[in-house]
Amino acid sequence: MAYIDLPEGLPGIRGPMAFRPETSKPLNELAEVLLRSDNSLSRGDRELIGTYVSYLNDCFFCQNAHGGLTQHYLQCDMPFIDGVKENPERADIPEKLKALLAIAGSVQKSGKHVTPAQIERAKSLGATDIEIHDTVLIAAAFCMFNRYVDGLGTWAPPDRMFYVNRASARAEEGYANYNPLH
Amino acid sequence: MAYIDLPEGLPGIRGPMAFRPETSKPLNELAEVLLRSDNSLSRGDRELIGTYVSYLNDCFFCQNAHGGLTQHYLQCDMPFIDGVKENPERADIPEKLKALLAIAGSVQKSGKHVTPAQIERAKSLGATDIEIHDTVLIAAAFCMFNRYVDGLGTWAPPDRMFYVNRASARAEEGYANYNPLH
Repeated sequence: MAYIDLPEGLPGIRGPMAFRPETSKPLNELAEVLLRSDNSLSRGDRELIGTYVSYLNDCFFCQNAHGGLTQHYLQCDMPFIDGVKENPERADIPEKLKALLAIAGSVQKSGKHVTPAQIERAKSLGATDIEIHDTVLIAAAFCMFNRYVDGLGTWAPPDRMFYVNRASARAEEGYANYNPLH
Repeated sequence: MAYIDLPEGLPGIRGPMAFRPETSKPLNELAEVLLRSDNSLSRGDRELIGTYVSYLNDCFFCQNAHGGLTQHYLQCDMPFIDGVKENPERADIPEKLKALLAIAGSVQKSGKHVTPAQIERAKSLGATDIEIHDTVLIAAAFCMFNRYVDGLGTWAPPDRMFYVNRASARAEEGYANYNPLH
């Protein structure tokens, strides 16, 4: 049971979002801009960054909700996602994305863990300033979302297929039109 | 120098906020709701929670920008703020606020560090569900803001009085009407 009296039956972040619509609005607008709006990084790549940071933060709900979305966008399977989580450098992904995931992994520890060498690597592989900015902010934002979900002791369905099965409906819904009661 | 090409001369978060207004908008709306809108927690208490988390995250800009705002709202001095940072339990603040700061301190580590005993303590001292929710989300949000500021290698004025001197103008400006170029 969650630490506060949240609407019942809503998994993960949906409970607190239904509880406090005043804060849900900017949180979802932030997610919409960062993860879905026009960007040279694909939606799948951005969801993968969020999934990886959620994994590092050990947030079961977020890593599976966004892992499911990543599978949907990248048309990949769960072992692929798990391989990226375990070791992005050995995964079958573009080198630029590896460099961005390395930056995201540092941000997960703290902003100060990002190194000039990590930034140089990303730039040398073609990452733009906007891509680096958004990677840092996506990683930072998931450090918030993960803490929000777990810090209130929310409930999450344990079956990972729950998230995979809902992903295409979630992708269609987006964040800006997010209704936590659905 | 920051890791990406930010507008020059803007301290801390103001550089990235001027660089990417699309993400600044929801970030500032979130700060406005969490730190300034009507709440049974005072603006000073909420800024103090943000200051404490920024201190734990070792983010110089945020702990001083929000420390300055806390001084402004609570009409206290810098040694008082530093005392809270060092040991909230020994500070001259209400017991309920100590309990909320303990929750915030756990959220800074990770959402999973929040314990049922910490929540029980806060509730027994009169904390409402909204106050607990907002404390968790304020702490989580500063884990984002701190990483955003430091993860992009932004610059911060080293003189702590810079922040104290600007605090009343910042309090008047608020977050919703925030202009990073000022």
